[in-house]
Amino acid sequence: MTPVVSIVGKSGAGKTTFIEKLVPALRALGLRTGVVKHHGHPTLFDMPGKDTFRHFQAGAEVVVGASSVQVAVFRRVDGAFSLDDLVATYFADLHLVLTEGYKRGPYPKIEIHRAVHAAELLCTAEELLALVTDELLPVAAPQFGLEDAGGVAVLLKEWLAA
Amino acid sequence: MTPVVSIVGKSGAGKTTFIEKLVPALRALGLRTGVVKHHGHPTLFDMPGKDTFRHFQAGAEVVVGASSVQVAVFRRVDGAFSLDDLVATYFADLHLVLTEGYKRGPYPKIEIHRAVHAAELLCTAEELLALVTDELLPVAAPQFGLEDAGGVAVLLKEWLAA
Repeated sequence: MTPVVSIVGKSGAGKTTFIEKLVPALRALGLRTGVVKHHGHPTLFDMPGKDTFRHFQAGAEVVVGASSVQVAVFRRVDGAFSLDDLVATYFADLHLVLTEGYKRGPYPKIEIHRAVHAAELLCTAEELLALVTDELLPVAAPQFGLEDAGGVAVLLKEWLAA
Repeated sequence: MTPVVSIVGKSGAGKTTFIEKLVPALRALGLRTGVVKHHGHPTLFDMPGKDTFRHFQAGAEVVVGASSVQVAVFRRVDGAFSLDDLVATYFADLHLVLTEGYKRGPYPKIEIHRAVHAAELLCTAEELLALVTDELLPVAAPQFGLEDAGGVAVLLKEWLAA
């Protein structure tokens, strides 16, 4: 299975922004990366008014929009799709999958931490592959600054090769 | 492979609107239906500002957004994804796939026709499973009115069972 690393952190810590920097840094190292974003509540994907959106609203089980550069798939599920199912189904040909959230999942974690959110971390040291933080903490894990996506990418490449 | 029927017609004939009526009519007959929309030019899926959109823009090869009721998959491709690949990959568990467009594809077709768009059809009688039209034409194919999605759904159910 494609290796999975979960990017976790308190709300507002900057998970999405960090992933936005990490993905191109991984790409620069030759790593083809996928991202899973977990939504705790139902959310609208696609754009209201687009044909694909209209077909999904009409009740299609699966709608695919396809151009020469992108495929978009919108699929109804009944809650049964686990993270492992998603990874096996949609990410089989990639080097690495990052998840945004899934903090209770079984995968190694990179926690994004800000001092303003209080010193306590979500993760134990055993779960942490790395800590991305604006303050040094007494935790036995490699620590990187909030802007150091390049450093985290190198660590992930080494971790994948180990 | 899941059976495929292509909904074709001149621009403005009302393909999207007809599919919007046909999908729930098929669902009412117990048929789980998927839709493929072909885009001749690259188009933006998802919504600017959403986390999934940001991850894709950042360069991820595949981005998945997952809630308890829907999975959305955004995947880069290099033009190599044929309609048959799409059907085999994403629609294996459905009864029927409708395509919007793909008028030069090999699948049976339902043409949406309006008198204002001139009498000539895109399809030959041999290609036509049905004609949806606002005028009766001398064509050897079952003909339905533009509002008669229910009639077309019954025809498709019989065609699938044949």
